[in-house]
Formats: sequence, structure tokens, C-alpha cells
Amino acid sequence: MYSNAVRKRLRSAGVSVGKRILVEKEGKKFEGLLMPKTDFSDPDSLAIKLDNGYNIGIKLGKDVKIRKSRHREPKSILEEEKLETGKISRKLLKVKWDKSKPPVTLMSVGGTISSRVDYRTGGVYALESPEEILHNVPELSGIVNLKMEKPFNKMSEDMGPDDWARIARLAAKELNSGSHGVIITHGTDFLHYTAMALSFFLQNLSKPVVLVGSQRSSDRGSSDAGMNLICASHVAKSDIAEVGICMHGSLNDDYCLFSRGTKVRKMHTSRRDAFRPINEPPLARVWPDGRIEVKNSNIRNRTNDRVKVDSKFEPKVAMLKVYPGADPKIIDYYISKNYKGFVLEVPGLGHVPTTVSKKPWTTVIKKHAKDGIPFVCTPQTIYGRINPYVYTNLRLLYLDAGAIPGEDMLPETAYVKLCWVLGHTKKPEEVRKMMLTNYAGEITKRTEIENSLGGFE
Amino acid sequence: MYSNAVRKRLRSAGVSVGKRILVEKEGKKFEGLLMPKTDFSDPDSLAIKLDNGYNIGIKLGKDVKIRKSRHREPKSILEEEKLETGKISRKLLKVKWDKSKPPVTLMSVGGTISSRVDYRTGGVYALESPEEILHNVPELSGIVNLKMEKPFNKMSEDMGPDDWARIARLAAKELNSGSHGVIITHGTDFLHYTAMALSFFLQNLSKPVVLVGSQRSSDRGSSDAGMNLICASHVAKSDIAEVGICMHGSLNDDYCLFSRGTKVRKMHTSRRDAFRPINEPPLARVWPDGRIEVKNSNIRNRTNDRVKVDSKFEPKVAMLKVYPGADPKIIDYYISKNYKGFVLEVPGLGHVPTTVSKKPWTTVIKKHAKDGIPFVCTPQTIYGRINPYVYTNLRLLYLDAGAIPGEDMLPETAYVKLCWVLGHTKKPEEVRKMMLTNYAGEITKRTEIENSLGGFE
Repeated sequence: MYSNAVRKRLRSAGVSVGKRILVEKEGKKFEGLLMPKTDFSDPDSLAIKLDNGYNIGIKLGKDVKIRKSRHREPKSILEEEKLETGKISRKLLKVKWDKSKPPVTLMSVGGTISSRVDYRTGGVYALESPEEILHNVPELSGIVNLKMEKPFNKMSEDMGPDDWARIARLAAKELNSGSHGVIITHGTDFLHYTAMALSFFLQNLSKPVVLVGSQRSSDRGSSDAGMNLICASHVAKSDIAEVGICMHGSLNDDYCLFSRGTKVRKMHTSRRDAFRPINEPPLARVWPDGRIEVKNSNIRNRTNDRVKVDSKFEPKVAMLKVYPGADPKIIDYYISKNYKGFVLEVPGLGHVPTTVSKKPWTTVIKKHAKDGIPFVCTPQTIYGRINPYVYTNLRLLYLDAGAIPGEDMLPETAYVKLCWVLGHTKKPEEVRKMMLTNYAGEITKRTEIENSLGGFE
Repeated sequence: MYSNAVRKRLRSAGVSVGKRILVEKEGKKFEGLLMPKTDFSDPDSLAIKLDNGYNIGIKLGKDVKIRKSRHREPKSILEEEKLETGKISRKLLKVKWDKSKPPVTLMSVGGTISSRVDYRTGGVYALESPEEILHNVPELSGIVNLKMEKPFNKMSEDMGPDDWARIARLAAKELNSGSHGVIITHGTDFLHYTAMALSFFLQNLSKPVVLVGSQRSSDRGSSDAGMNLICASHVAKSDIAEVGICMHGSLNDDYCLFSRGTKVRKMHTSRRDAFRPINEPPLARVWPDGRIEVKNSNIRNRTNDRVKVDSKFEPKVAMLKVYPGADPKIIDYYISKNYKGFVLEVPGLGHVPTTVSKKPWTTVIKKHAKDGIPFVCTPQTIYGRINPYVYTNLRLLYLDAGAIPGEDMLPETAYVKLCWVLGHTKKPEEVRKMMLTNYAGEITKRTEIENSLGGFE
């Protein structure tokens, strides 16, 4: 409980816990939700959750002015007002689905978009039921006829190949039994790895598979969950038969980007437009009103083909960054642990240090490449393409030592792909050929790459 | 030598080796420098170096039209015309320095900017003398009075802490004996690591230290070396007493960015504007005509202070990326090799997997952190900031296991900084305090970060 003095001032300002408050201190204004005081905090300080999702504490001295905010609280917050009394009332909005709309499966596997803030602790917890995601997004019923699936619930940093395969199997099953598209709500940290895996696992893909997350949980005022879900629903019933991530395209709530699963990466810890297409334009811009502007000509169209799953996977692959002082003996260590392949994040056009250590990278790579171990080099710069022909040292690495130049694949994409390729064959020449074959848009043509970065605009 | 048929057609078009040629084939136009034929290539195919720096071969069939280009060759190319006769004539431009201009030291340590293309092999080789860099840039004599130093010549991927210390000592010596600023011409692959190291090594910095490279060698038509050097010279005599990288700011030859040494990263393999400031605006925009637009208020001004060097350094630090499937036992391996600290590139707001393996990351980190080993977590997203307070798993990692949240430091910056910090102390609490202290602009304040990405514009 806040102190008597604080509660008195809150009462006279007409603000209570769970309501929006405007605080002015030393000329600076802060606006957000007034939070209940926790056991560990100062009873004379206001705890305020700002619209960027973070909590601040402000000592309510005489120099501090408070008043009620004119902005409205999000619905879900209102329903938690009873918190201060110790009781939590959570009413679920009953969404009525319109059966005349295209059937789409929403698969909930976890993450912030499936979480809520516990206002007692400030921590973030999983929703009890996936339907809660839809709490603030009744608009969805005007777009699609949603069917919910909840195969498991994990934060994305704890997911791996088995989870990816499970999602792929369920997605294929749904698409092959009437769903026009699949939406997967997922944590954002490793969301792009799942997108990459599904891009290779789902063969004959004939319908949209739309991964969506949120950078702020759905009960926050600034949450991106609602708009991301609305845009994802538009994509899921569209004719774009690709695996991709659909999330905010800018800092404003204006449009989302739908970016190819093999060409997208989380590029910011907290911004809502963190997922950026790399080395190609987004597949499409998507507006909440349903407009879809296709931005990329390399797109498969919806068909009636049966989707197949090929999730063969060799997990014994290491991704290593090459930096000044990095010791290539780490490769020997992984080989001793029975690792089958390596993705190297290398600087510039594709270099490795050749002279720094007593045992240079080129020597170590050449030795193991001769034994049939693949080394795929990818851009540490993230943007751009490996070009093995420019410098003498590059020729040493790619022509003599036998490393595979990873074209313009993201390191993360090359990692997932190499695991998938090694799940199919260990023969060096086949591995090389498959790594340099474009299966899911992961390698783009050399043309026009300079003008289609897709980065922060 | 080209075949007789090819030479006949070249003659009638008025084009010879070393001259610019325009080739039209199947409706596509190619323009570039006609190269001498190598021993390994088809005598009926033209070898052309395009303006983007790459060579192509075009079979000179009847369907192919050729003509002289109206564009002029760069000076240095003209002087190599005699190549075809087997003799190489390299005349050095004699630059006359104006002693009334501010004295600035140009330190040449290697890289593409100190290289030339060998038109016989297509390979890139080091210049014989650093003065050759200035070959195409006589404009410099109107800006500064340059003194040349060439402590060593290396491609940047082969550089390390000893080289950084050597550069720092020479830079301090020059600045303390009359130079108004130091320009360092350097390879681009690991250029940002050198910039980071100099930022920590050079104490009491009172004058500009400007690192500059080029993405295309100086004898190419499309080289960025000239403009980068001109802009770097303007910065070197300015009042901005910071270590930074000065290179192209856009794809056009319009302006350069001068970006802080601790906040800049190579973000593209080949673009001329590859070096981008991360998480803050560039220090300044610099135009070739000498205009300098300061974009960042956090800048030290020129003084007469004596520059000191503090290059204490513990190289036994590993930088590790945390990805799905990454095994934390790699930490035990490094510890067994006597490593003293770790920089982790972690996803999202600062997570590590907590449940995937039998021995989760948190457990391994906690065990070694208890023994005094520092683990600094940095954003795998590159952009943004670690925030250890949002999720339960984050609290486990930072509050319980004892990892250090690396704020908005680049992984590369945190790596160089941790080596430098551990060169001064191994005491865990001192290391933590130093890692969270801002020494060289490597940690920015939380305000306004969202709107100052500094990425590709």
C-alpha cells in the first residue's frame, strides 16, 4: 500500500491504481499507468508503468505535480483494477467467429505475445489460455474465422529443432485439412530461427505461414500485439504462399512488414519495428485495413498443393564468429565433440585472419575440410554478400582451403540450413551443392542488392 | 594477348587496354575499363573491370556491340597503359605540401586504401609507398600539411592488440609533438576494432584521431578513397577531439560520416557507406568542401592537453554468440584454457536459454561468475540495449547468476573494453564497475535511443 500522504494526494487528483496518471517533476512530464506499490518499494514513491513498457519510481515530493490523464486505459487493464484489493478478476472476452470468413489456424507457442504483466511483481507471465491473446483484438472476427491450437508454451530462447519440427507438422496438418493459412504467435528473441527452420522444413508450401510476435505484452498500452495480429490475419488469407514474419514496419502504428522467413532478423532489442528484412525488400507491406502492397517479385502464389514436412536435422553444427584474437583451435575442440559442420561469421567480403596465430584459421579449416567437414562463411556485417574472388587471402580460403562462400545468406539462416542439409547428406560435394542451391529464397541474385537493404528506413 | 579478331575490332572501335569501353549484349549495357587478357582466359572474350570494381568476361560474338566510352579514365589507370607491353611504369605524383596549412600526420597501416589492383592477375596488392594513396587526391594539399608515417602494412583481418598499441603510441607521439590531428589509413574488415581499442587506449584525448579506409582500391574508377581522405583531413584539423571512423555516409559521393570509435560497425560487405553509427547519431556529417555539421552533442573539444597511452590488455577473453542449440559447455572449455572473461551476444533484451540443455547457460554462468569470471551480455540484435528487469528469466541471469548487463554497448566494443578492463584489474567488483562506467562514449544514456539508430537511412 502507498503511504497515507500519497493516497490522499492520489484521491484528490482522482487517480487510482490501474488508471493513467500524468506526473510533472523538474519540468519533465511522465505519463503512464499507476501501478500498485510492491512490498519492496518506497511507500512515498509512485510506481508508474510508462507507455514504452518500463516502470519508473517517482518520489511524490512537494515539487511533483500529478493529475489524471485524458488518455484512456486499455480495456484489459480496467478489468484488473480490483488488484489492490488482493483479488484478481480476469474476464475473457467472448469472440464470436464469423463462419463465412476464411478459416485460419492460430497456433500459440508462447512468448511476450502470449504473456501478461503481473502488476504485483512487475514480472511477465504466460497467459492461462491462448484466447486471451485476442482479448484486445475483437477486430479479428471481421477478417478470419480463427481456430486456436496450443501445442506448447515456451519463451523463444528455450526453443530448438524439436519444437520447430512440431510446429511444422502441425502447420502442414492444418493447411492440408482446410485452413487457408496458419498464424503462429511466438516469442521474438529467436523468432527468426523458427521462421528459417519452417522455411526449409515446409516443402511444397502452397499457403501463407505467418509468424507473429510482440515486443510489448498485449495488456500494455503501447502493445504492438493487436496490430501485428490484424495484419497477420490479412496475410494468412492472402495469396502469398510463403513463410514469413509479420510485425510493425515502423515506429508508428501505420503498417506491418511481412518479411521472408530466411531473410529476416531481429535487429533491435526493444523497438516494435525490430524485425527487418535483410538484403532484399520485404515480401509485402500490410495495413491494418487489409491493404497488401507486394514489394518483392520473388513470391510463390497460393495453390491447392499438399504441404509436406521434411525436418531431417543434424544438430551438431557450430556457429562461430571470427574476430581479432579468436583462436581457431576452437574448431578442433568441436571436432573432438563430434561436430559435423561449421558456419563462420567472417569479416568483410569473407576473410579470416591468416597470420595472427601460430596456427592460422586457413590451416585449421583446410585440415578439417579435407576430412569432409563443411565450413560455410557468412557476412559478419549482416548486410551484403561474400565475394571470394577479390583478394588473394580470399582465394586461399575458398579455392585452396575449401571453405564454402555463403553468398548473401544470413549467418543464422546458413546455420539452420547447414543443420538441415547435413540431416540429408554428409557427402562433401552434395553438402556444398545444397548449401549453394536456393531452396527458400535464402540466396538472392546479385542484381540490385545494393538498393534493397531493407534495413531501418 | 587477345585474339587477332578481337584486336581488330578493338582497333576499329578506337579502344585499347586501360581505356574505358562500352559493351552492349542482348540489350544489356556494360561499361568499364578494358583489362589485359590473362593467360588463363579465353582470347576471344573481353575482360572488363566494371565500375563496381568487379571483373566480367564477355565473349565478343557478332551479337556484341562495342564502342569507346565518353567517360574519362582515372589518372592512375592512364599511367598503367604500358602494361600490355609487359613493362610497368608507375610515376608518383609529387604533391607539394603547403606549410601554412595545419600539420596533420597520416599514418598508413595497410588495407584496401593502401592497395592497388594488379591488372595482370586481377588480385589486390599493397602499394609500394604510402605516398601512392595520395596519387589521385592532390586536393589534400589545399587542406592540410601532411606528414606521412608507415609503421607497418597489414590487411586489417590480420591485426590485433599489439598493432593497436603500436598505433596508439605513434598517434600520441605525433599529437604531442605538433600534429593537429592524426589520420590512420587502414583496412576496413576489422577497422572498427582498431577504432574501439584506440578509444580506450588514448587517454586525455585532445585532438582528432580519424580512421579511414576504402571499400574500393584507390586506382578504381568507383573508389571511395579520395573523398574519404578529403573528409578525414577536414575532421583532422577540426575541433572534434574524438577517435572515429570517417567514410562515405551514403551511396552517393555527397558526404562522409564521422562516427564515434566505440559506436561504429561495418554493416555491409561491399557498400561504400558500410560503416554505420549504432545507437547514436554520427558525431558529424562532413562534406568534401570542408563543411562539418556536428550531429551529436556529446563531443569533446580540442585542447592542448597531453595525450597519454594506456594499452594494458588481457587477450584471454572470448566472445560467444548464444543461439538455439549452442552448448554452454564451451565456457568450461575456455576456462580450462585459462580464459579470464566472456562477452556473450545474447538475444532480445538479454536472454540466454534456461531450459534447453541438461546444463543450462544460467547454471554454467553462475558457477564461473562465483569464481570471479565476468560475463558481459550484449545485444545480438546489434541495435538497442540490454534491459535486465523485464522478464523473470532476465532476473535469474543478472541478479542471481551474476552476469553484467552490457547496456547499449556493441558486442565488439564490450569485447575490446573487457580485455582492456581485465588488463587493469581482475577483481570482480572493480571489473563490473568499470564495465558499467562510460569511458569513451561506449554507453549512451537511455533517452532518445529509439530515435537515433544511426542505421542505413
